[in-house]
Amino acid sequence: MLDVAGLVGRARDGEPRAVARLISLVEDAHPRLRDVAAALTPHTGHARVVGLTGPPGVGKSTSTSMLLSALRRQGKRVGVLAIDPSSPFSGGALLGDRIRMTEHATDPGVFIRSMATRGHLGGLAWATPQAVRVLDAAGCDVVLVETVGVGQSEVDVVRLADTTVVLLAPGMGDGIQAAKAGVLEIADVFVVNKADRDGADVTIRELRQLISMGRRELAGPRWRQPIVPTVAAKGEGADDVLRALGEHENWLREHGELQRRRTARASGEIEAIAMQRLRAELGELRGGDRLVELASRVVGRELDPYAAADALVTDLRGG
Amino acid sequence: MLDVAGLVGRARDGEPRAVARLISLVEDAHPRLRDVAAALTPHTGHARVVGLTGPPGVGKSTSTSMLLSALRRQGKRVGVLAIDPSSPFSGGALLGDRIRMTEHATDPGVFIRSMATRGHLGGLAWATPQAVRVLDAAGCDVVLVETVGVGQSEVDVVRLADTTVVLLAPGMGDGIQAAKAGVLEIADVFVVNKADRDGADVTIRELRQLISMGRRELAGPRWRQPIVPTVAAKGEGADDVLRALGEHENWLREHGELQRRRTARASGEIEAIAMQRLRAELGELRGGDRLVELASRVVGRELDPYAAADALVTDLRGG
Repeated sequence: MLDVAGLVGRARDGEPRAVARLISLVEDAHPRLRDVAAALTPHTGHARVVGLTGPPGVGKSTSTSMLLSALRRQGKRVGVLAIDPSSPFSGGALLGDRIRMTEHATDPGVFIRSMATRGHLGGLAWATPQAVRVLDAAGCDVVLVETVGVGQSEVDVVRLADTTVVLLAPGMGDGIQAAKAGVLEIADVFVVNKADRDGADVTIRELRQLISMGRRELAGPRWRQPIVPTVAAKGEGADDVLRALGEHENWLREHGELQRRRTARASGEIEAIAMQRLRAELGELRGGDRLVELASRVVGRELDPYAAADALVTDLRGG
Repeated sequence: MLDVAGLVGRARDGEPRAVARLISLVEDAHPRLRDVAAALTPHTGHARVVGLTGPPGVGKSTSTSMLLSALRRQGKRVGVLAIDPSSPFSGGALLGDRIRMTEHATDPGVFIRSMATRGHLGGLAWATPQAVRVLDAAGCDVVLVETVGVGQSEVDVVRLADTTVVLLAPGMGDGIQAAKAGVLEIADVFVVNKADRDGADVTIRELRQLISMGRRELAGPRWRQPIVPTVAAKGEGADDVLRALGEHENWLREHGELQRRRTARASGEIEAIAMQRLRAELGELRGGDRLVELASRVVGRELDPYAAADALVTDLRGG
């Protein structure tokens, strides 16, 4: 029997094993998550959620580790959710060098959790905000959500942060041009890591051009995305990144954007929970036979898939 | 005014622009897709759908191109759906060398289409089967669905093929071990490309071990996944791949699996259409205000997200 109240209490006291257990319940889509969420919610709303993404190879884990150290020097409690890409092929290649974070493993003010999302019924949109909620209730001042920018769902998750940091590095060449629309759309702060390498000035200049082009298309006041050069492997630039994060937080508060973003995050979470429930109900109609029956008729060309979907939704409403 | 009947008629006559237009309608989630599906469905069920996936760098596009040429030599009409990873960062890097396929661009027996899935409301699970349906109705004997194996959604789509080909290459090292469960699960045919390189024999041997380990866990008759070495850049091994595909097709038919897989594909398609509709309805409740109101209450810690989802689903049923 799962003692939800006890587990939540211990997580709030900062017990790492209780926090880990609660995030595991999210990963496993445990049936009692509903009770967990009810117990956690009153204790949430404190953590600042920062998303961190970028293409493979830019040094995301090193950068996360650098930010972690800098935040710890400020005395902040920090949670890190590293969202693993869910491909069966990914192996270790896309994940980068998580080993660097082991230096924080024994720090009681730090929770680090890799979330494997493969096989998740509800996907990242479902699991991530719930895991963030656990870390928030456990007293984290900052929650860093780190993803590899390889899939739309990963990027969507990062966009739900209060502030999204997009990492780039010199030598991406045409990559920046090709990626411009998407990158501009999601970044609140750009970090150009490996800024001691050749071509860093070119990357920064190209990025600056893209930002000014993007701004021209927009009317009204808007956050001016800063570009922060770092050399994460040497720990250089951490304070500049934190300063940029602080300025963005102030901007968010002044413009009512923090509330708006958090409402958007909660909307996504509610929607994902509702959709998972509806999906389960669709699959269970007439003991699971209804969907198969309709699909057989589509394969038999009696019915088109839209008409079949209509029938399914009608059954759901009647059920 | 969109002339659906005319467009479908021209697509069935094999007019490339009509086929392209119909797939664009899928990409754009056009409101008249419902009519398109109704018009296409009676003409579907002929095409053999082959999924092709594997980690970046194994030579997927070269392999697709090689298979395309081999199928054309057999006089087959072939459609290729290249599913682009939807990351804003992907640029050209993950896509591989699509340029090789330009040699087929002027062949009237070939349709090649890259599908960008970014921003798709329903995602890959929604768009891909509908695009396959277009190519099927347009008279393709074979539809190749090619994806980069970087996200669960991409892999899910490939699993919905009649036959799934997983490409690997020498030098992945631990990758195969790390990936074993996922890879074994989805592959009907393994292709080890770049088989003229050092280490190809090791890759094949490791793969063979994995397959035999996997088989021990299963009772009853089961398809024995073949391993086909190829050198796609030199066109070597194409006929062996086609032979393996043919044998798998025979096995599917003999064991009633073809019908089962197509029913599963149609189930996924119906479910995705129904879910997209339900998602839209959730978002529109009380003119779009209901979800925002509930989300504000979650942010304000009055309500937990599960209770909010309950309220949303109750409203949906009542609506």
